[in-house]
Amino acid sequence: MTLKFGVVGTGAIGKEHIKRITSSLCGGEIVAVTDVNQLAAEQVVEQFGLNAVVYPDDKSLVAAENVDAVLVTSWGPAHEQSVLAAIEAGKYVFCEKPLATTAEGCMKIVEAEMKHGKRLVQVGFMRRYDSGYVQLKEAIDTHTIGEPLMIRCAHRNAKVDANYTTEMAISDTLVHEIDVLHWLVGDDYKSVQVVFPKRTKHALDHLQDPQIIMMETNSGITIHVEVFVNCQYGYDIQCEVIGEEGVANLPEVPSVITRKNATLGASILTDWKQRFMDAYDKELQDFMDSIKTTGEPNGPTSWDGYIVAVTSDACLKAQQTGNKESVTLGEKPAFYKNEKEISKTV
Amino acid sequence: MTLKFGVVGTGAIGKEHIKRITSSLCGGEIVAVTDVNQLAAEQVVEQFGLNAVVYPDDKSLVAAENVDAVLVTSWGPAHEQSVLAAIEAGKYVFCEKPLATTAEGCMKIVEAEMKHGKRLVQVGFMRRYDSGYVQLKEAIDTHTIGEPLMIRCAHRNAKVDANYTTEMAISDTLVHEIDVLHWLVGDDYKSVQVVFPKRTKHALDHLQDPQIIMMETNSGITIHVEVFVNCQYGYDIQCEVIGEEGVANLPEVPSVITRKNATLGASILTDWKQRFMDAYDKELQDFMDSIKTTGEPNGPTSWDGYIVAVTSDACLKAQQTGNKESVTLGEKPAFYKNEKEISKTV
Amino acid sequence: MTLKFGVVGTGAIGKEHIKRITSSLCGGEIVAVTDVNQLAAEQVVEQFGLNAVVYPDDKSLVAAENVDAVLVTSWGPAHEQSVLAAIEAGKYVFCEKPLATTAEGCMKIVEAEMKHGKRLVQVGFMRRYDSGYVQLKEAIDTHTIGEPLMIRCAHRNAKVDANYTTEMAISDTLVHEIDVLHWLVGDDYKSVQVVFPKRTKHALDHLQDPQIIMMETNSGITIHVEVFVNCQYGYDIQCEVIGEEGVANLPEVPSVITRKNATLGASILTDWKQRFMDAYDKELQDFMDSIKTTGEPNGPTSWDGYIVAVTSDACLKAQQTGNKESVTLGEKPAFYKNEKEISKTV
Amino acid sequence: MTLKFGVVGTGAIGKEHIKRITSSLCGGEIVAVTDVNQLAAEQVVEQFGLNAVVYPDDKSLVAAENVDAVLVTSWGPAHEQSVLAAIEAGKYVFCEKPLATTAEGCMKIVEAEMKHGKRLVQVGFMRRYDSGYVQLKEAIDTHTIGEPLMIRCAHRNAKVDANYTTEMAISDTLVHEIDVLHWLVGDDYKSVQVVFPKRTKHALDHLQDPQIIMMETNSGITIHVEVFVNCQYGYDIQCEVIGEEGVANLPEVPSVITRKNATLGASILTDWKQRFMDAYDKELQDFMDSIKTTGEPNGPTSWDGYIVAVTSDACLKAQQTGNKESVTLGEKPAFYKNEKEISKTV
Repeated sequence: MTLKFGVVGTGAIGKEHIKRITSSLCGGEIVAVTDVNQLAAEQVVEQFGLNAVVYPDDKSLVAAENVDAVLVTSWGPAHEQSVLAAIEAGKYVFCEKPLATTAEGCMKIVEAEMKHGKRLVQVGFMRRYDSGYVQLKEAIDTHTIGEPLMIRCAHRNAKVDANYTTEMAISDTLVHEIDVLHWLVGDDYKSVQVVFPKRTKHALDHLQDPQIIMMETNSGITIHVEVFVNCQYGYDIQCEVIGEEGVANLPEVPSVITRKNATLGASILTDWKQRFMDAYDKELQDFMDSIKTTGEPNGPTSWDGYIVAVTSDACLKAQQTGNKESVTLGEKPAFYKNEKEISKTV
Repeated sequence: MTLKFGVVGTGAIGKEHIKRITSSLCGGEIVAVTDVNQLAAEQVVEQFGLNAVVYPDDKSLVAAENVDAVLVTSWGPAHEQSVLAAIEAGKYVFCEKPLATTAEGCMKIVEAEMKHGKRLVQVGFMRRYDSGYVQLKEAIDTHTIGEPLMIRCAHRNAKVDANYTTEMAISDTLVHEIDVLHWLVGDDYKSVQVVFPKRTKHALDHLQDPQIIMMETNSGITIHVEVFVNCQYGYDIQCEVIGEEGVANLPEVPSVITRKNATLGASILTDWKQRFMDAYDKELQDFMDSIKTTGEPNGPTSWDGYIVAVTSDACLKAQQTGNKESVTLGEKPAFYKNEKEISKTV
Repeated sequence: MTLKFGVVGTGAIGKEHIKRITSSLCGGEIVAVTDVNQLAAEQVVEQFGLNAVVYPDDKSLVAAENVDAVLVTSWGPAHEQSVLAAIEAGKYVFCEKPLATTAEGCMKIVEAEMKHGKRLVQVGFMRRYDSGYVQLKEAIDTHTIGEPLMIRCAHRNAKVDANYTTEMAISDTLVHEIDVLHWLVGDDYKSVQVVFPKRTKHALDHLQDPQIIMMETNSGITIHVEVFVNCQYGYDIQCEVIGEEGVANLPEVPSVITRKNATLGASILTDWKQRFMDAYDKELQDFMDSIKTTGEPNGPTSWDGYIVAVTSDACLKAQQTGNKESVTLGEKPAFYKNEKEISKTV
Repeated sequence: MTLKFGVVGTGAIGKEHIKRITSSLCGGEIVAVTDVNQLAAEQVVEQFGLNAVVYPDDKSLVAAENVDAVLVTSWGPAHEQSVLAAIEAGKYVFCEKPLATTAEGCMKIVEAEMKHGKRLVQVGFMRRYDSGYVQLKEAIDTHTIGEPLMIRCAHRNAKVDANYTTEMAISDTLVHEIDVLHWLVGDDYKSVQVVFPKRTKHALDHLQDPQIIMMETNSGITIHVEVFVNCQYGYDIQCEVIGEEGVANLPEVPSVITRKNATLGASILTDWKQRFMDAYDKELQDFMDSIKTTGEPNGPTSWDGYIVAVTSDACLKAQQTGNKESVTLGEKPAFYKNEKEISKTV
């Protein structure tokens, strides 16, 4: 009953997931690895004491008979071909973001998966597994605050390095909000606009920081996301949903409360990895559990990956034009609807 | 040393201020009242046991020799003439918002006051006297959070009555933010834009509620104010200033914390009057104290009233057009600059 | 309708109250002052520009015809004779704590006042006027948390000077809790016990700090008060009432919330004067208002002063013995019962 | 590398741990089970699809060659013999509280384990694995708040059933605080006393609820724990450590913050199982990981179980006498000292 993983890409995030599967989670095993740097792949096998074969490339790894599921943690531009190969072979896939670097690439995956006939792919948008977002969704779904009308978010990092560009505020940072927010309210994006507030002096010259991304959903919900990646004070994720009957906020990260030096204080995280540590564990555990019990993964789908790609493209355009840009998605295929959505349609 | 007030307009807000001056504050006395409804004016004299003359109109009241200061609490459209009459007579004026209903009217008052040669007028923007905003300004002024880059506000009322219109979200509600925010950051508005999110079902058909007003200052600070006047849950004023080094939020209204029925809870006010009760007291006490000690009032000036009028007009236009509308103010006259601003200029 | 005050004792607290009456509150005037240091009294008249006569002693001041009310802010041991003189002359008295330094002294005042036939005296226990305690009492009185069973308090000062003694933890510090807690729950103390926890290194050798005072009421409510006067971090007053249906806590002092340097923080006061500033204003305003409208003060009574004296004595004894010491009060005279208590008895 | 467990006792808590090991944690397997009710044991094997042998009793299960570790989740009075049998056989033991029902029983286990020569036993005090307590200990250990002087705790349950007795406030409820608090401050208990506040009307006649247990450590730290098991409002665990430089509080359980119906609210748990869910997972995962990496468990030891037994006995006596009762522990054997303690001694 153990799910046997082949890992494509043994860099930082690949190693994190390998460690997770081998020493914290239940029901998975790493049996195959590959990396463009073969030596790196071999070192990982040794480092974690894996009983795993090192393959020369993703194709051969995917083809290995004992591989049940492919963990795609390679460089972003390489994702698409690995995912397609895995689908082709009828293997499950857990793919880190992005599913593909273009909307077209994502659509190819969607089509391949639909052709295969059942869900194989889960995209690594871990926030849906964060207990705070889960509580927030439950508050919305149980009508605690009535129909959502507006959402205000902040995505703040203490600082970024010199490689971080204005576009990455969308493609690396905002993507998490793009995924989690449409899931939260069960609605799709209609348009986006980007505003550039006063630049912080802590941003390098090439970088516009902060940015405010305004998104509108089909039902008219207005969403404002502040992306501020040199905020200095810490890693801080905020989300407030304003509904017809009330307002709900994502919980603060729990912290000892101290009274010291005339200050009542709680700690704010500085390392983003700590913030969603549990969510990373849960997404992979759920991937394994769901496949075992239902034969399909249960998390963010290829279609969700496609939504993020299309919406990101619109945001990148909006950064350039300063205008409101529309987000054009096709109709969500019945294949990707969950039971609730299907019953709504019927 | 008692400041003798003549009150123009003895409606609800007029009575509140009369009560304040006669039973809570120090150093003021009501010696004259007038109202378009003479009977109402007479009843107020009796109700509060005032030793005050009832005048037939604002002109005669202003002219009364024993009147030091005129409290203008009449219907908005009547403010301008009363204020101008008071300035003409060299009397101090405390004028409830709006200073005048048009930017031109405000400018006339500005010019009259400058011609008189010293400050006589204070406009009733009480938030500057709220201890929360005072703390917030102090945090900004002492560089606790670095240079402000963005501000996020919410102005929520539980509900409004049928008379409340889409325009009043600007002219009655947003005006408080317009005044307090430019004071908070010491900057002027450059442009405004209004977004209409999904309408709450609790709003009557003629009313767009909620609204989001986006304002940009000369230095590039981006401000988003949510005005939501049928939010159901209470009266709630929020303000978050995001700076280069940190973030500061207006304090919550202090409330007993209870643990009951599986809820850790604090009360939210439902009556807006309670929220700024102390600020109302303090603005009038400061008006009296400042006149006694310096010969001039110290609070929001005619020029501040003018800024609010011009900015409100731009917001009303933006409601119509959906576009970004510019806010065009003249250069702030040296007459209205405080010492800090003057020293900056020199 | 102005209440004319004679002030006995023009030290720090006397000056504070004089300033309050002359520049913040409504309806009072200082017409007479005295101090053991005549020069000091004269300087105060000048400093505040008072139109007041300087008297050689409390007796002559009390006798002055234009004195309606005597403000006793002298050295503690002198209070009793001034209060008795004022009662004798039928004058109102606002007396700072202690009412008298002994239970016998307090009882003499109680008897004199009862003999006079109406309430004249209010003791300066300002916490009953603090909006937090008022909210807490309201939560209890409206049965929000059910019948109170336990109370946990903390009374913390950043530091004290070398003159502060182990006994003063009771007579200067705990007295405020002694007064406010029996008022809060409408119950009297039955016994007290004092525990000495580990001593802080920040206390001088002669001082036991912190201390925990455990009090039991007649109905069985258990109260634990931590007195910690060298807590270093600030001035902090906490009170938690645990009831049959829920728990209520005194609000934190409102403060701007900042996010900075990896800390979500709010300020804690360091100066005790700021904490109850509003309560000091309100107790004196209420003293004046209540006398004007009902002919009697409405705040803490001579009997309350007596309760504090008897309970403090028991605590001081308990510090010595380490045992549970009983608090023996006579039956509360009908004279001091409020309407609610009287209706309960009948 | 899988740790093979034999489970003694397949009741509620036994099943919870079996589920944990088989479906959430990494590195364990259930290979043997027993229960006084054989049928129950068989059903558990079926329910969880275990590949496990059902043994007739603890002795035979312990003796099974493939059993590496014994999970003792039987009825309390049966623990001692199972643990001793496991030690005798040189097997690891994870034993739910109590280690034994008497101090003598615990001491026998301590002696058996020492005789065996290495640590085999971990007692199920899961709070040490709760992230809140871990943070609190870190705050203390890093001297964030200086030397601890006092601790205030509350242990509140919404309600208990008719079987719950006054003694169980100690043996079932307080035991968790007894264990976690001495670990938190690295100190042993010297004396205990129990106070009975006013009884809640929600307690049945035979039950004294709430209770306050006061404990003193060897270094003089004063600890007050409120046990209130019919508090109605929820399951709530509070812990405040007051130190020489500041104060630290256990975090609140993270919850979505809502603004609704004039209330700013967060949820309080009602089910105690949810509160320490993560800690239960972590204690067992650590038990397995630590054995694999160091050959010994790392959590609460037999000696800790003995401390709890001795302290509980003193508390039970104190409930009867109302007096301060001393806690007499022998010197902690070097065998149980961690490296830090050993280096201190040397």
